[in-house]
Amino acid sequence: MTKTLKGIAASDGFATAPAYLLVEPDLSFKKTTIKDVQAEVQRLKAAVQESDAELTKIRDTAQKTLGEEEAQVFDAHKMILADPEFVGAIESQIKDQKLNAEQVLRTVTDNFITTFEAMTDNKYMQERAADVRDVTKRIMSHLLGVQLPNPALIDHEVIVIAHDLTPSDTAQLNKKYVKAFATDVGGRTAHSAIMARSLEIPAVVGTNTITKDVANGDELIVDGVNGDVVIQPSAADSDHYQKAAAEYASEKAEWSKLKNSATVTADGKHFDIAANIGTPKDLAGANANGAEAIGLYRTEFLYMDSAELPSEEDQFQAYKTVLEGMNNKPVVVRTMDIGGDKHLPYLPLPEEMNPFLGYRAIRISLDRQDIFRTQLRALLRASAFGKLCIMFPMIATLQEFRQAKAILQEEMQKLKADGIAYDEKDLQVGIMVEIPAAAVLADQFAKEVDFFSIGTNDLIQYTMAADRGNDQVSYLYQPYNPSILRLIKRTIDAAHQEGKWVGMCGEAAGDSIMTPLLMGMGLDEYSMSATSILRVRSLMKHLDTNELQELVEQAINVSLTNEENKQLVTKFVEEHRH
Amino acid sequence: MTKTLKGIAASDGFATAPAYLLVEPDLSFKKTTIKDVQAEVQRLKAAVQESDAELTKIRDTAQKTLGEEEAQVFDAHKMILADPEFVGAIESQIKDQKLNAEQVLRTVTDNFITTFEAMTDNKYMQERAADVRDVTKRIMSHLLGVQLPNPALIDHEVIVIAHDLTPSDTAQLNKKYVKAFATDVGGRTAHSAIMARSLEIPAVVGTNTITKDVANGDELIVDGVNGDVVIQPSAADSDHYQKAAAEYASEKAEWSKLKNSATVTADGKHFDIAANIGTPKDLAGANANGAEAIGLYRTEFLYMDSAELPSEEDQFQAYKTVLEGMNNKPVVVRTMDIGGDKHLPYLPLPEEMNPFLGYRAIRISLDRQDIFRTQLRALLRASAFGKLCIMFPMIATLQEFRQAKAILQEEMQKLKADGIAYDEKDLQVGIMVEIPAAAVLADQFAKEVDFFSIGTNDLIQYTMAADRGNDQVSYLYQPYNPSILRLIKRTIDAAHQEGKWVGMCGEAAGDSIMTPLLMGMGLDEYSMSATSILRVRSLMKHLDTNELQELVEQAINVSLTNEENKQLVTKFVEEHRH
Repeated sequence: MTKTLKGIAASDGFATAPAYLLVEPDLSFKKTTIKDVQAEVQRLKAAVQESDAELTKIRDTAQKTLGEEEAQVFDAHKMILADPEFVGAIESQIKDQKLNAEQVLRTVTDNFITTFEAMTDNKYMQERAADVRDVTKRIMSHLLGVQLPNPALIDHEVIVIAHDLTPSDTAQLNKKYVKAFATDVGGRTAHSAIMARSLEIPAVVGTNTITKDVANGDELIVDGVNGDVVIQPSAADSDHYQKAAAEYASEKAEWSKLKNSATVTADGKHFDIAANIGTPKDLAGANANGAEAIGLYRTEFLYMDSAELPSEEDQFQAYKTVLEGMNNKPVVVRTMDIGGDKHLPYLPLPEEMNPFLGYRAIRISLDRQDIFRTQLRALLRASAFGKLCIMFPMIATLQEFRQAKAILQEEMQKLKADGIAYDEKDLQVGIMVEIPAAAVLADQFAKEVDFFSIGTNDLIQYTMAADRGNDQVSYLYQPYNPSILRLIKRTIDAAHQEGKWVGMCGEAAGDSIMTPLLMGMGLDEYSMSATSILRVRSLMKHLDTNELQELVEQAINVSLTNEENKQLVTKFVEEHRH
Repeated sequence: MTKTLKGIAASDGFATAPAYLLVEPDLSFKKTTIKDVQAEVQRLKAAVQESDAELTKIRDTAQKTLGEEEAQVFDAHKMILADPEFVGAIESQIKDQKLNAEQVLRTVTDNFITTFEAMTDNKYMQERAADVRDVTKRIMSHLLGVQLPNPALIDHEVIVIAHDLTPSDTAQLNKKYVKAFATDVGGRTAHSAIMARSLEIPAVVGTNTITKDVANGDELIVDGVNGDVVIQPSAADSDHYQKAAAEYASEKAEWSKLKNSATVTADGKHFDIAANIGTPKDLAGANANGAEAIGLYRTEFLYMDSAELPSEEDQFQAYKTVLEGMNNKPVVVRTMDIGGDKHLPYLPLPEEMNPFLGYRAIRISLDRQDIFRTQLRALLRASAFGKLCIMFPMIATLQEFRQAKAILQEEMQKLKADGIAYDEKDLQVGIMVEIPAAAVLADQFAKEVDFFSIGTNDLIQYTMAADRGNDQVSYLYQPYNPSILRLIKRTIDAAHQEGKWVGMCGEAAGDSIMTPLLMGMGLDEYSMSATSILRVRSLMKHLDTNELQELVEQAINVSLTNEENKQLVTKFVEEHRH
């Protein structure tokens, strides 16, 4: 039976392939006492042997398709199986306690896991806990005679169906064969969605029920443009989507021609489309997609991918690489945004009841000036190699901005005294507008900053008082709610009043419903995933900003809801595409 | 040596008395092996006996000074001491393990506590865990020869000094002798501050170091008007504060004359001062202080003080009592505000990473309509007995308000069909404005609601993205920040544009810096702790609203910071008091 599921369009494109369910099978069992101890030990040994053979196969395939690093995970699993203390402990407890192998396996491995996990300051042992958990699952599946999904073994084109996709799930996928994702949960900012966009494959998230509605091997169509998944499509469905896919492909071909063009609207107005990056490695994608700037360099990866605070020299090298790689195009670097949901193993933060409303980003930087000054010195030194804009995150009050800027100026004086070069002329200093207070006072901030960059993810979450990661209130993550649009417009108007520029670096900057509204408001810079740049550049080319004024007026003062605005913009773009 | 500590003025008034430190003594010890088992058992028995004698004395005093209910807590403690399984277990382990009594006491009681606390669905056993904890502390203090604070034994006037005051601490205080509080931590909204205001004794909170700076018996002056604590005052200090206290007393006498007056400003404008209440019991205080309305009836206590969801009938009785008790003056009842930091043992909520940005208040009510409809029916039935205003908390979008109102209307229809009376004519339906989105869209909300009530605590916390309970970011709890004042003014202007009234029921409504600003903005209703009413009524009497317009303009468009505005208003009131 054909069935269509509605979800959230998370990554553009169309794909047709059979389903591959990345879903945990039921591994529950009953505790039983056994009579034939020897037979039970044999059952355990057989399951261990089968697990080992399976891991060998997965390891070999993974090495070929995913590379040596991903394959090594499975070596760690095989080592656990080979450890006599591990299997030995289970064997001897089966003999002592006369319980079934499943029960003993569970008790013994829970014990290992608890011990390892208790070593909270030892990352190595915590990773071992995860390995034991994975191995236990595998042995258990063989004891129970059920099949675990083994994504590393995928050897034909599939559409991956999962409740959610974690980073470790995606690491094991053979991306060559994965044509699309669809998940039960998540939104446009979920890991799975971001991953799909970076792989440039279509994805639909938040379908609620897809893992229940789809069986392994079911034929599927994923429509990542409209957020639909068609299960067991009819011939008519297949026809319809083939045409849509062809149209999309020709659109994409059209977009790719824009790679080396400036971003110009139908009425000849110029905007800047920039890329968001996390590490110098992401530069390649930004340049390949014709980014006119880096609108957000998230420096927290420098801190998160390190075992200790990164040195001034290490930071300097990273910043310099990015500035040089952009060839004098602007690079907006956000200072450390740690805290909230981002933690560093070597920087213990207080336990907080509401970390998103807590000690994070600039609040930590102003408190831990040792860390902040090191970053600022590295940035200043790098500024000699390109066009640097320094941006402070989570600014709520003018005092915070003034304090941060004063510290920056002190570091400039010190560098000058030491005769170390930095960009004295063009260096810009701005703030993220992501806290409602900053948007409400944008007129006052605009007098003191060089630029704003609007961070929609946090701005929406605080303005609606709804954690964007909390499924229970995800209906309140409303980018087109008139209250959000008003705060954005207020910020843009305030900046322009003082002759300053405004960017946006949240998810919304690359969203095709938001783009026409932002153009109408006169947003200067749009920073997004590199893979969205050409689509947005194409959209802008077809819109006339003069016609957008009335759309903005309508969306802000007449429409009452997020949904109304979504429909309003969709209809407008259909009717006003030049 | 005289020393003055600066803290936060949490409750008005002046007091002089010796310090009583409500501070846990150091109960740490070393694990040692013992040789003379018999002597160690004797040591334990002696400590148990001393604890029992002490508890008898405390119990007797508590019964006389605090009442039977408070005294019964100590019976529970004595029962634990008398339980042979308890002391017996410790004795026999001392004998078996040859360890010192402190170590064995700790091990055995930790075991009890862990077992009891694990019964998370059994409130009775969890309370027993707290009792065991208290008793262990007492025996330990006798083993170690240190003195626990015994607040129930206070028999002379004192000023209580504590790191923080919990509800269970304050339950044991003999309020007759406690002249003031001062604490290390907390703000104006802390439990200790609210308690002090309800007892009408001065309090200073957030001094950071007072438990370290003060010794038991030190002479202290607490100035709850300015937030100062003077330690070992000089003769000149004593003189100065005696005068200040006398002045304050005559002010208070002046205020009390206003009990039966309306609230009228120097230029003859009328405002309403209302009381915040939690239970029908609080009506007495509201009426004694001349409340012109109930501006906030927090119905969550009905849910929190119950072992199951309160029935429609129980709720109806409570609401009816309040409406009748107010004699046709308006009563604003807020529907259930559960979630965030308020939980019900019988209503399990999801674990959330950021509960203040999560599933709470109207979000639960719209989802759990069974609970919501019961409350609405009880409210509607009670509306026949007074002047009811129903208020929905945590409204972020117009859809939410429309949905809540539609449910209310359905319940009206049902009552009508059943021939049950409710107020069809004057019943008002409004919302809390406490989420930034609602303030930003106040013009659109104002067309659909009957009234607004601004909840400053949450509005500040979301607008500044700072959890008000998190010490690390408490500097961002800025009621006078121009961004907050702008959102408040926007809300008031929008309501008046549509001919609707606006109240405020957060802490700020009774704050003497905020009052002149709110008067200047034209806020209609000011709801506060009952004990603040007469002070605010007196302040309003001395101010001319015509002169306040410029103050508001300055605070919103010229001042840049919370601190600037605090100074601005203080100076203005000094100069413009009529």
